[in-house]
Amino acid sequence: MNIKFTKMHGLGNDFVMINAISQSVTLDTETVKCLADRNMGIGCDQLLVVEPSPVDDCDFRYRIFNSDGGEVQQCGNGARCFARFVVDEGLTDKTEIPVLTAGGRIVLTLEGNDQVTVDMGQPVLEPADIPFIADSQQTTYRHTLADQEITFSAVSMGNPHAVMLVKSVDDASVKVIGKAFQNTPIFPEQVNAGFMQIIDRSNVRLRVYERGAGETMACGTGACAAIVAGILQGLLDESVTVILPAGNLTISWAGIGSPVMMTGPVTTVFNGTIKI
Amino acid sequence: MNIKFTKMHGLGNDFVMINAISQSVTLDTETVKCLADRNMGIGCDQLLVVEPSPVDDCDFRYRIFNSDGGEVQQCGNGARCFARFVVDEGLTDKTEIPVLTAGGRIVLTLEGNDQVTVDMGQPVLEPADIPFIADSQQTTYRHTLADQEITFSAVSMGNPHAVMLVKSVDDASVKVIGKAFQNTPIFPEQVNAGFMQIIDRSNVRLRVYERGAGETMACGTGACAAIVAGILQGLLDESVTVILPAGNLTISWAGIGSPVMMTGPVTTVFNGTIKI
Repeated sequence: MNIKFTKMHGLGNDFVMINAISQSVTLDTETVKCLADRNMGIGCDQLLVVEPSPVDDCDFRYRIFNSDGGEVQQCGNGARCFARFVVDEGLTDKTEIPVLTAGGRIVLTLEGNDQVTVDMGQPVLEPADIPFIADSQQTTYRHTLADQEITFSAVSMGNPHAVMLVKSVDDASVKVIGKAFQNTPIFPEQVNAGFMQIIDRSNVRLRVYERGAGETMACGTGACAAIVAGILQGLLDESVTVILPAGNLTISWAGIGSPVMMTGPVTTVFNGTIKI
Repeated sequence: MNIKFTKMHGLGNDFVMINAISQSVTLDTETVKCLADRNMGIGCDQLLVVEPSPVDDCDFRYRIFNSDGGEVQQCGNGARCFARFVVDEGLTDKTEIPVLTAGGRIVLTLEGNDQVTVDMGQPVLEPADIPFIADSQQTTYRHTLADQEITFSAVSMGNPHAVMLVKSVDDASVKVIGKAFQNTPIFPEQVNAGFMQIIDRSNVRLRVYERGAGETMACGTGACAAIVAGILQGLLDESVTVILPAGNLTISWAGIGSPVMMTGPVTTVFNGTIKI
């Protein structure tokens, strides 16, 4: 069976996008692995399949699969690609698109200029829910890691983040401290470690060491967690440009009780047809 | 400008194939780099462009570019992909296809069953032409490398190879000895190091440490060099199946004065269109 697909990326996090509405597609784990293989398949970090919505308050459903075939809950870069994809495929002409994901309903907004805004949900600060072992919820915590006294915030954006302030991201010991965070029992499900350099109240630079992956070039949830941490410490305004190694995201957060909004670019690379 | 392309691979060595006969395509170094980028482009080890032949005794010319934009002389895996590609594109219906490459004229034979035979040219055994520093040409040489007395053959297939016999490729110190070969002055342009386990006179297993790349999964010239070395030592028959980590090649050589013939598989992965 021949299927059509589109290759897209959001800040270098790349996706094979499959329209399973206009064409009939069934993907098993082996097929996902083959499609994601960079030498013998199409190659991608993740595969995103767009399906009809099974519920009334969403226009679509999408599912995201890792290159090992496992399904993932949520991914900000994938969500942005999805919004642009359904418009390009002629599946919608809306600019606000409600979609059901494995992590629940989200609404995406096409901003024009290849920018898409994603509602990333509310940050979780309660330690037990992150999960993070602490006596009480605080804005910052102190622990000794890699023989250093480290001050950090703990925030979950669906996945756990520890955010540190650094004078310069260029000089930060991202690998050493990032690894040390993986080995501490205070984060029982490990943690993504963010290193944030504040330029001014609306601009920061950020590097993120992701659990299981090492340093990555554009961690969307890491950007959200960092800005939440900075706003809670009174250091940042409500809307902040986050300069990541792969490019920029704009993160906005109105404070406790509000969702974090992430705006970023999406790029269509090519269209293809493959036999599966 | 939109261009059509096909993604193919030969034992995992993957190519973006571009038909520059049916469509007008001009590629500069930057464009090659973008197309070869695995996250933000199509992604490939190399890009192969098929052009009209400028000479009478060839039906086509092709050029191969590395992902850094540099042009390479020859590549057995790419040659196999080329033969299948020009047939699939409807550019020829021959099964023997003469083509001009940056390394000279070669003739490819479509064997059916997705197998293609490439004339890899005659092996070069004269030390100075490999280049390899030795007093005289011998079937095997002995040198101390990585604190071990190593016996090896020296063969050039357009690029230099040192071939060792091992009891088991699984137990061979491919990385340690492969690296030691890069640091010895006896190969002034460095050398690819092959580790061959002879199963019987027509079957071998082979691992190759390539200069500049480390161990690779399917080195075509390495397979040719190994079989030449084995035949010259009287250990192998004229046609041998070489079991590489990524799959099998069949190498045939009738002896001094004859070209080495390499037969192997080629796989078409997908067709696409990209804006450049």
